[in-house]
Amino acid sequence: MQDELQEASRKTPGQRARMSEVERLRHSCAHVMATAIARLWPDAQFAAGPPVENGFYYDVDLAHRISPADFEKIEAEMRAVTKANQPFERIVVTRAEALEYARRGRLAALSDRPAPSRFKLDILEGIPDGEPISFFRNGEFIDLCAGPHVMRTGNVGAFKLTHVASAYYKNDEKNPQLQRIYGTAFKNKTEMEAWFTMLEEAKKRDHRKIGAEMGLFAFDPDYTGPGLPLWLPKGGAMIEELEKLARETEFAAGYVRVRTPHIAREKMYLTSGHLPYYAESMFPPMELIEHEDQGARALHDPDDKFDRVLKSLQYEQHSPKEVEELVGKILGASAEAKHADADRYYLKAMNCPHHHRIFAAEPRSYRDLPLRLAEHGCCYRYEQSGELFGLMRVRSLNMNDAHIYCTTEQFAAEFNAVNEMYLKYFKIFGLEKYQMRFSTSAPEGMGKKYVDEPALWKQTEDMVRDVLKNSGINFVEAANEAAFYGPKIDVQVWSAIGREFSIATNQVDFAVPKRFGLVYRDRDNTEKTPLCIHRAPLGTHERFIGFLIEHYAGNFPLWLAPEQVRVLTIGDDAALVDYARGIVNELRANMVRVETDFGADKINGKVQRAEQSRVHTMLVIGPRDMAANAVSVRVHGKGNQGARPRTQAVADILAAIKGRTN
Amino acid sequence: MQDELQEASRKTPGQRARMSEVERLRHSCAHVMATAIARLWPDAQFAAGPPVENGFYYDVDLAHRISPADFEKIEAEMRAVTKANQPFERIVVTRAEALEYARRGRLAALSDRPAPSRFKLDILEGIPDGEPISFFRNGEFIDLCAGPHVMRTGNVGAFKLTHVASAYYKNDEKNPQLQRIYGTAFKNKTEMEAWFTMLEEAKKRDHRKIGAEMGLFAFDPDYTGPGLPLWLPKGGAMIEELEKLARETEFAAGYVRVRTPHIAREKMYLTSGHLPYYAESMFPPMELIEHEDQGARALHDPDDKFDRVLKSLQYEQHSPKEVEELVGKILGASAEAKHADADRYYLKAMNCPHHHRIFAAEPRSYRDLPLRLAEHGCCYRYEQSGELFGLMRVRSLNMNDAHIYCTTEQFAAEFNAVNEMYLKYFKIFGLEKYQMRFSTSAPEGMGKKYVDEPALWKQTEDMVRDVLKNSGINFVEAANEAAFYGPKIDVQVWSAIGREFSIATNQVDFAVPKRFGLVYRDRDNTEKTPLCIHRAPLGTHERFIGFLIEHYAGNFPLWLAPEQVRVLTIGDDAALVDYARGIVNELRANMVRVETDFGADKINGKVQRAEQSRVHTMLVIGPRDMAANAVSVRVHGKGNQGARPRTQAVADILAAIKGRTN
Repeated sequence: MQDELQEASRKTPGQRARMSEVERLRHSCAHVMATAIARLWPDAQFAAGPPVENGFYYDVDLAHRISPADFEKIEAEMRAVTKANQPFERIVVTRAEALEYARRGRLAALSDRPAPSRFKLDILEGIPDGEPISFFRNGEFIDLCAGPHVMRTGNVGAFKLTHVASAYYKNDEKNPQLQRIYGTAFKNKTEMEAWFTMLEEAKKRDHRKIGAEMGLFAFDPDYTGPGLPLWLPKGGAMIEELEKLARETEFAAGYVRVRTPHIAREKMYLTSGHLPYYAESMFPPMELIEHEDQGARALHDPDDKFDRVLKSLQYEQHSPKEVEELVGKILGASAEAKHADADRYYLKAMNCPHHHRIFAAEPRSYRDLPLRLAEHGCCYRYEQSGELFGLMRVRSLNMNDAHIYCTTEQFAAEFNAVNEMYLKYFKIFGLEKYQMRFSTSAPEGMGKKYVDEPALWKQTEDMVRDVLKNSGINFVEAANEAAFYGPKIDVQVWSAIGREFSIATNQVDFAVPKRFGLVYRDRDNTEKTPLCIHRAPLGTHERFIGFLIEHYAGNFPLWLAPEQVRVLTIGDDAALVDYARGIVNELRANMVRVETDFGADKINGKVQRAEQSRVHTMLVIGPRDMAANAVSVRVHGKGNQGARPRTQAVADILAAIKGRTN
Repeated sequence: MQDELQEASRKTPGQRARMSEVERLRHSCAHVMATAIARLWPDAQFAAGPPVENGFYYDVDLAHRISPADFEKIEAEMRAVTKANQPFERIVVTRAEALEYARRGRLAALSDRPAPSRFKLDILEGIPDGEPISFFRNGEFIDLCAGPHVMRTGNVGAFKLTHVASAYYKNDEKNPQLQRIYGTAFKNKTEMEAWFTMLEEAKKRDHRKIGAEMGLFAFDPDYTGPGLPLWLPKGGAMIEELEKLARETEFAAGYVRVRTPHIAREKMYLTSGHLPYYAESMFPPMELIEHEDQGARALHDPDDKFDRVLKSLQYEQHSPKEVEELVGKILGASAEAKHADADRYYLKAMNCPHHHRIFAAEPRSYRDLPLRLAEHGCCYRYEQSGELFGLMRVRSLNMNDAHIYCTTEQFAAEFNAVNEMYLKYFKIFGLEKYQMRFSTSAPEGMGKKYVDEPALWKQTEDMVRDVLKNSGINFVEAANEAAFYGPKIDVQVWSAIGREFSIATNQVDFAVPKRFGLVYRDRDNTEKTPLCIHRAPLGTHERFIGFLIEHYAGNFPLWLAPEQVRVLTIGDDAALVDYARGIVNELRANMVRVETDFGADKINGKVQRAEQSRVHTMLVIGPRDMAANAVSVRVHGKGNQGARPRTQAVADILAAIKGRTN
């Protein structure tokens, strides 16, 4: 379903509770920083101090306005704390004891410095009855905190404060404004230095900067709208190549290609379950109410009870059963409406419902399975404008999507084939480091967060786990992070400079095909619901090209380069230009993207311009080349490769493009 | 702009006035039919009797309910009228005379039988002052009619009544219900017989029927919505081939490919002029009003004056100047709105505005021109549900679109190259008959129906006419049928069974680039507005594939066939199947769409199934073939082609696909 494609880099509170090793380190460093700040400014009152992506922060209420100029002083004090190598001590107390401490600044079990924070009383009240209440102490600093922490302050090997911002307590602007001080921490100095070097390099490789330099894409918030990239010809060429790669790879793997519209009626998404759960991430509907028919209008009556309830629905406030009942009623009302035209149409936020309808369009037998429907479908998601970021978080998503419908017996082979396709792609793009994050359900979420089918959950999770284990793929398992309708795999890759990207997800779906009533006739002549695998190895064009720009620093391999070849003449002698043009025509006849620079100006300038434009291969042609029926080959970033016979040079280029090497 | 793509088969009243030869014949036949009906049922009162596509009708008010059982009787009486070879006599009268006739049934200039029709009085009142009022008489029949007619009833060589329906007078349900009797007429019997034979054949080739049989596409009005085809895998394969053809052809012609979103902000279409003129053909907007910002909300205030006026605007009611002013004010209000998110987003009904924004995304110099931006863009148009018809009239349009930006000097060469691309395509698809309908402006429409730039109109029309004349292309010129922003060419082709299809349009646009402020820096360092050519030779996938289904009766050439090859074994001997599978794998490795039939059942049944499925090439493999390292080739509809060496058969298939022959 790929709902998670843009979500993967966002951490939910639930995920934060299960801290990784480095998150534990960074959260502990937040305490170290708080200890130092409390020493320097004893009036400091602390709110929350969680780890975040690539670091940590602490919200602090303090009369002194902390600026980067203070960082050195704070870091010096932090070094004193880590040098002291204080143990982190966990102290579990009763609610009465904790309240006593929070109110009066005294707690029998603890030395009571620093002064208790007024925020902590509020936080304390938010802890549900029955959950343990714990404090953590290091040296003189004590803090209401669920942990976990490293053993001692000395375990925080290297740290650095990075920036300061203002933030409202609990991010609510009705609350007081606090200072949010950000930092990061690592096991040791070497790791930290590598991180900052990587950041420097990532800045140089910023996909927005390189994308603009190379003319790959443009944003046009004013006319087209924010978060909706226009792909310029050079970016369009890359998209064509990626789609060609997908077409070839998927054809070889037995996929067939379909095309579906970008819109559908409300009923589609009520059936899939995207409405109401996903409504906030979808564009608002187009309302067609041309007909005066009563039945159809009832569906859109703002005073209509179902309608209002549907709009106000929140995942947390209603049980799936209640929602199901309500959706059933609305679908019933919709069925009564005589005119299909009096309806809400939605831009699709995912391709699966349309593919499900294609599955349903013809009677299916077990002989038709597995059926692998592929489409580079363009979906639209309404990301908040504050969340938009270059190609990485956008509102239009051109997705390398496919849905595989299969029997339970076919599942393992199909899922394995999908993983192998990933590995094939990783090889083509020179991705050496990857990880598959296998998200499973948890018993406590059954019938709430997860479809209430414990047996199916176990069966599919076991199957996926077996496939992963047997294939020797690098994976980690994350309990209680699955999608609503089945287990999923988030694919994380590391770019050439070691930065992690969540590029795609695979999901198993045993719930939605049932909601759409999809069946196939099995050998035993009974009707069965197929399993469905959602997969998009190349993610979206937007995110994947954004990643590739950083990964290659814009120096794309020949097959992918927007300008693959430029032919440069030494001077503009007519015979020479004719010879050069012959080579250009030969390459173009083979669909090579080749440009020319045949002017009278000096060859050094021509080469320099081509290098600056990140042209992959330069064919430099002088009188000596022409006389020998040869060309001089130069490769971007690799310099002069020497003269080669013309036929050889052309054949080499075509072979490199076909093989997607280099 | 391709606005006209789906429009081309609709006749406007203006077009009707300029009747073609065959329309004149058919309209005259309507009078012949009315003469016959008036003889048979003297109480008949006649309303309108225009020619329509492929025939004519007459609306008649009559106590007797006419049914097809009456047709023979009416036709016999009509034959008597044509045999009498009565002259059609035009009688111009004054309004007073006409009113006299209509009121009292008497007109000095005329014999006053039959009784005057009460509808004619109404029609008479609708004729503007100053326009001539004419009657036409043949024999005893007289009718208020603008004409024109053929010379004599005997010129109606052959005719046939086809069906009868009910219709309200003036198509308004508040008016009385009439009987609408349809028929058709031809110069002679041979032509009429050819027509009905063609209709029979067209029925057999109905794209909806063959499309369903072959599993090319499906409609899903219930979930996806009416008029929004789902392309099933076999239709998807054809789309892939058509896009590949376009990619190759356009690459060779120096086009570059872009990708643009399917939506844009209201401002885009206010600027292009599609709002308000084209609003009724667009899907309703998606309204984003998340922000509380005053400026942004004003734009969406239902009480807002501009807003209301914009919605109520009709082309006929306001001068272009008034509309321009109003749109300018709305754009001004929009510019003041701080949040891009509080806006209306529209599904695009055409790709040009997005392409214009790509042109505007980078500074352009004369050196960058011509710039040819191509995209298989998917547009959405809100056709009334009653107008939807299979793939021929749909709401989603996958368009083979491109926009060529060029200087005036480059125009002729570019326009000629576009026409040559058409001819290349016609050859590939075996289209022997075509016509380019060149629509020009008319002085009386300047500043009203047409952008008020008489000099530019003359210049571009002259250029287009010269190109057409010099290239020897088959064209006709139609005055006063141009688009708002420039002259256009509608491309009409005739299918293998002689039916005409409007498949695409080329349009010259010298107005909209200016509205978008598009400029390039010319040699003389001044800024100039480029000309823009809109073109889509392959039309839309929907309409073009609909046409191809009829044209080929579903028996597509090898390169286009959804299932190109099926390999059939004589029996299921393991070694034989292995040999067959080797051939399958070789073909698949070359991206050939090949299926297998390796079962134990008889070869005759296998061949029959493959023929029924319209598989292009069948490779039949028996023990003798295997022993000789050969295959027996069978081609759909052409029968057995004999045995061929395996390598030869494979090479032939690959060559035919590559060359798009057969």
